[in-house]
Amino acid sequence: MQDKITQLLAEIQAGSFRALARGITMAENDLPGYESLLFQLKNTDTARVVGITGPPGAGKSTLVNALLHHWINTGKKIAVIAVDPSSPFNYGALLGDRIRMADFYNHPSVYIRSLATRGALGGLHAKIIEITDVVKQGPFDYILVETVGVGQSEVEIAGLADCTIVALVPEAGDEVQTLKAGIMEIANIFVVNKADRDNADTLYRNLRILAHERADGEEETPVIKTIATQKDGVAELADAIENYLKTHNSLPEKKLQLLTEKCWQLIQHQKMKGYSKAKLLPGLKEAIQSPDFNLYQYTSKLVENNA
Amino acid sequence: MQDKITQLLAEIQAGSFRALARGITMAENDLPGYESLLFQLKNTDTARVVGITGPPGAGKSTLVNALLHHWINTGKKIAVIAVDPSSPFNYGALLGDRIRMADFYNHPSVYIRSLATRGALGGLHAKIIEITDVVKQGPFDYILVETVGVGQSEVEIAGLADCTIVALVPEAGDEVQTLKAGIMEIANIFVVNKADRDNADTLYRNLRILAHERADGEEETPVIKTIATQKDGVAELADAIENYLKTHNSLPEKKLQLLTEKCWQLIQHQKMKGYSKAKLLPGLKEAIQSPDFNLYQYTSKLVENNA
Repeated sequence: MQDKITQLLAEIQAGSFRALARGITMAENDLPGYESLLFQLKNTDTARVVGITGPPGAGKSTLVNALLHHWINTGKKIAVIAVDPSSPFNYGALLGDRIRMADFYNHPSVYIRSLATRGALGGLHAKIIEITDVVKQGPFDYILVETVGVGQSEVEIAGLADCTIVALVPEAGDEVQTLKAGIMEIANIFVVNKADRDNADTLYRNLRILAHERADGEEETPVIKTIATQKDGVAELADAIENYLKTHNSLPEKKLQLLTEKCWQLIQHQKMKGYSKAKLLPGLKEAIQSPDFNLYQYTSKLVENNA
Repeated sequence: MQDKITQLLAEIQAGSFRALARGITMAENDLPGYESLLFQLKNTDTARVVGITGPPGAGKSTLVNALLHHWINTGKKIAVIAVDPSSPFNYGALLGDRIRMADFYNHPSVYIRSLATRGALGGLHAKIIEITDVVKQGPFDYILVETVGVGQSEVEIAGLADCTIVALVPEAGDEVQTLKAGIMEIANIFVVNKADRDNADTLYRNLRILAHERADGEEETPVIKTIATQKDGVAELADAIENYLKTHNSLPEKKLQLLTEKCWQLIQHQKMKGYSKAKLLPGLKEAIQSPDFNLYQYTSKLVENNA
């Protein structure tokens, strides 16, 4: 098994999308060998993780699409992880969108993986860190993680990505001040997409003011106007990403927090091996019949006996 | 310590509200001795747990208020656990509401405890089972648990309570069909509160139809009209509760599920003793500097060393 995993990892590193797909599936579903795979991952930083988030309808997927075209033309290799359920890269998309994206699915420079959003409570994906770590083993320049900005996912994307893009659309207009604080704070780059719409300038101006206020004398978060459907502004966006990545190479606090959270989860996972709720139930069902039943004693004994 | 806890428990059983308050606080915050307290809890079923849930504005607290008056007059002892942040029994209430409730706070037949809703993600309260188990030790006839029907809390209340009341108001009117399925399924009794409003009859009729459809030939979920502010219909509601509790004494599946969930959490809690995120962070911060850093190996070694 170990040898097969070493072989799989070598194939991923050599650029096999088939091997990568298998590796991701292993990590995603705890399939046999996943631990060995995770243990063998190299601490590589070749691929930079770029997060794209924003409200539904902000045109995130079209931006991803435009960035892919741009980067392919400059010889880059890119992986896309779509966690956004409404993304055309994901299964939830309209048929038209999916067809529009179809050319990339067989492009040798682009690997695309969509993930079901697990955990209905707004978290990004239970295995997003493991999956991103596996994808990092491949010979990619960029790993784009597309997420919809809802609930906890902002915090997670900020910890996961080396550069986080927050995409907004002119509808948001004057309400920038009332936008969810969470999504604003994580932006390393703001994008005003659909910049040909009315109100685009208002949104742009308001974001610039916000960026200026937040900067507090330090470097201001760039605000880029794009019309992603026409690829307008996409070269500027790519430059802004490149520039941000070049000048920000340290380990931000939020990344360390996410790692700590993951470490905690992994310990829990390891500690809980051998337990399952399905296995607990029948025992409880019987034990509870006893007039002396005490859940806390019962649980404590379970732990003692399995320790 | 053990002796002091035994003493505390004896006082709770004898009806000391002061002792009960201390016991709850211990369980709520994992204070020293809480394990010993939980281990010594008797498997008692004297007190029946009645859940009251429903959307904000349904008048749940006024219903609780009216039920308290009714039960006190018939010589019952009642504990109220308010998890609803908007409840006047809770701290979030308007001043007027709190004053209105103030008489009960010193009534010898009524113990009231409000809980902050922990876990912003909609769960009832991380320690609600432990707290309810502690309250059950007291000489109460009823334990009323008031919760706002949002997210996961419905499922939890249904597992926790021996009888669950779902309170609705006429505004809901014709939209019964579109009401969240979760909150409808857990109802053992429906209450149409503020029954003097327009549309009350429509809501009542729709609920009756729904109850009939759900019953599928079996016993139908009762629908009670109340005007809680005037205590109208409250005697009928109390009768319906009494009747439900008399005829439903078995262990429902949802109760077993909640117990299993809690058992799982308790095991996790016990297994994770000695770990804390705060303690993990500095180690990670250093380890991550190494070019060979691998989170999965790192975590595995942590578990080995602390095992």
